[in-house]
Amino acid sequence: MIDTKSAVIDRESSLGKARDAIRHAELHALVAASPANFYYLTGTSFLSQRTIPERLGMVSVTASGEPTLIYCTIEEGHARQESWIKGLRGYTEFVDTPVDVLSEVLREQGFERGRIGIEMRFISARDFERLRQALPEAEFVAADGLFDRMRAIKTQGEIELLGAAALATDESIRAAFEEAAVGMTERAIGDLMQAECRARGGEQLIHLVLATGENGFKVHALPTDTKLERGGVLRTDFGMSWGGRYFSDIARTAFVGPLQPWQEETYRKLERGHQAVIAAMRSGVKASDLYRLCAAEFEKASLDFKMPHIGHSIGVVMHENPMLQPFDDTPLEAGMVFMLEPGVTGRDGFYHTEDMILITEDGHRVLSRSADWSEPMVLS
Amino acid sequence: MIDTKSAVIDRESSLGKARDAIRHAELHALVAASPANFYYLTGTSFLSQRTIPERLGMVSVTASGEPTLIYCTIEEGHARQESWIKGLRGYTEFVDTPVDVLSEVLREQGFERGRIGIEMRFISARDFERLRQALPEAEFVAADGLFDRMRAIKTQGEIELLGAAALATDESIRAAFEEAAVGMTERAIGDLMQAECRARGGEQLIHLVLATGENGFKVHALPTDTKLERGGVLRTDFGMSWGGRYFSDIARTAFVGPLQPWQEETYRKLERGHQAVIAAMRSGVKASDLYRLCAAEFEKASLDFKMPHIGHSIGVVMHENPMLQPFDDTPLEAGMVFMLEPGVTGRDGFYHTEDMILITEDGHRVLSRSADWSEPMVLS
Repeated sequence: MIDTKSAVIDRESSLGKARDAIRHAELHALVAASPANFYYLTGTSFLSQRTIPERLGMVSVTASGEPTLIYCTIEEGHARQESWIKGLRGYTEFVDTPVDVLSEVLREQGFERGRIGIEMRFISARDFERLRQALPEAEFVAADGLFDRMRAIKTQGEIELLGAAALATDESIRAAFEEAAVGMTERAIGDLMQAECRARGGEQLIHLVLATGENGFKVHALPTDTKLERGGVLRTDFGMSWGGRYFSDIARTAFVGPLQPWQEETYRKLERGHQAVIAAMRSGVKASDLYRLCAAEFEKASLDFKMPHIGHSIGVVMHENPMLQPFDDTPLEAGMVFMLEPGVTGRDGFYHTEDMILITEDGHRVLSRSADWSEPMVLS
Repeated sequence: MIDTKSAVIDRESSLGKARDAIRHAELHALVAASPANFYYLTGTSFLSQRTIPERLGMVSVTASGEPTLIYCTIEEGHARQESWIKGLRGYTEFVDTPVDVLSEVLREQGFERGRIGIEMRFISARDFERLRQALPEAEFVAADGLFDRMRAIKTQGEIELLGAAALATDESIRAAFEEAAVGMTERAIGDLMQAECRARGGEQLIHLVLATGENGFKVHALPTDTKLERGGVLRTDFGMSWGGRYFSDIARTAFVGPLQPWQEETYRKLERGHQAVIAAMRSGVKASDLYRLCAAEFEKASLDFKMPHIGHSIGVVMHENPMLQPFDDTPLEAGMVFMLEPGVTGRDGFYHTEDMILITEDGHRVLSRSADWSEPMVLS
């Protein structure tokens, strides 16, 4: 059971990064509203931010002084007990509009003509219009990229939690695959994977793709009552939440047996391409370069290269930036954590593998292989 | 095991409602982008709409002709096989920007000067700016309320699924409470509830509030290793997903025993207030009237009334409109489904009860009571 309860980020480091961003972008205030960035700056998030998106939680950070956390009064106790932010401003649901409270806060801070960083990718068009009307002389700046950069370099605590979660997820898949046999349904195998993951500290199921037979051609196939058949392929892409806010995400492909020659060939080619990209992952290399390298490796191996991206960063959101896609020229840095996940459609379905790679001072470390997946796994 | 696999909405009825809304609001096109409304108009949704929010799925419906479904090509197979929409337009992630594809579609339909209904509560400020720049002469209208109204009256299939899910969730809580005893942890009881619910067809855990002892004062307390103690209160608010897209949401309060006199008094008063509101629920009554009635009942019983709302509609979103809150004057109609959930902070924590009420032609029907909760449940 991995430790998912200890805090992995701290006030000093999170607010320090936020204030660096404020200086760098010459902002007066930086406002987080998405559950991910709210958590990153406050050390907590509300259950209802996920289930009731209109019940916004926000935090406004300025260059100095205590930040202000804006919360629905239903979450009063949670806000007081769980956050490291001491400037608290509650609003009453349906009586107050959350963004109106934000504009009051910004006005009180003297920023009615200020330069305010907000999450343009998250805040709704309706809320943004209202905010602009309330503060017509303020300048609103998209701060999404600033938050992405803050979160891209993981803390030591985040690296440990994400790595342990990835490894536990890999172990869970392996353990379930070891019990899988001809006649078992996709659903039963998926249930086993979840139970194994829960026993290791996994919490909510986030995604579970699992397919065999004809279903294997659907990239995002959900488990059905289809049964494993001799000679078939079994593929999964599976993730749960850990510590309430972090994610795991591992893809694996195995074979029911007897292993067919074309299966072995496709599997080995995919694994070779995967390892070639891993070998190139180090500080300074651009995300987009890795994408092109993968495309070249696939071409060499005569594999059909169709992926719009070959991987992503991971943390408090499943797909974080930088992304391993052709237009992301971010150079890799030590402390970044990537999920590398090449895939290819073979003769009998989609083949997929996915690993967590930590960028280190002197190269990289693969954090997610609990067993040797370089050889095709054949179910007994 | 309840049937969560059959379709509960159909093309004819969903598109019929959308076209009524188009006529009513004098629109040229109505665009859904949130996973909930996308599902409602297409009969499906993509797993990645929840885990990767930037990978938008959208559908544009016009007064006549086939609607256009806009999807990321990674979801090609799913879009072709699972949706009843036959007008398909794929985009390549990172190469194309999803809202640019939407503006192309609207332009091709001849609506560059049209009146377009979009979800202003959902679409991001960034995407809306881009859409406005691409179609500077179009008029964009907030269509959120139109979608709310379409979804407020449930289909027969939705009523059956939501009712069965609510009842199964209530049974699961009851079954777990029947096994609970002094010394058991909140976490163990929560695990039991989830296992019971899964056995009945529940899928992903959506929310699990569960508290005893001091934790009982936090409205949204997550289960911890705190143990049940003699004389204590046990309270939960619990929901899972069903059929991939619908939700259950039931709150219950029970007592470890021996039952203390103040516990019985608070429980009975809360239940009486709850039943008084249920008795008033029928077609024509305003949502806000029920809120005021609840406040009056609480006052009569000397219970502290602090809730910003006393309940909500439920369906493909946990909190749907109409909401039972002071500013929602929507009259109830047959086919609406409400979660009524009054609560009060008593001497030893928050007391909470929550039931599903269907509005019928001749009044209402309570769909969520698998057992008699009118008497306080004392754990054995």
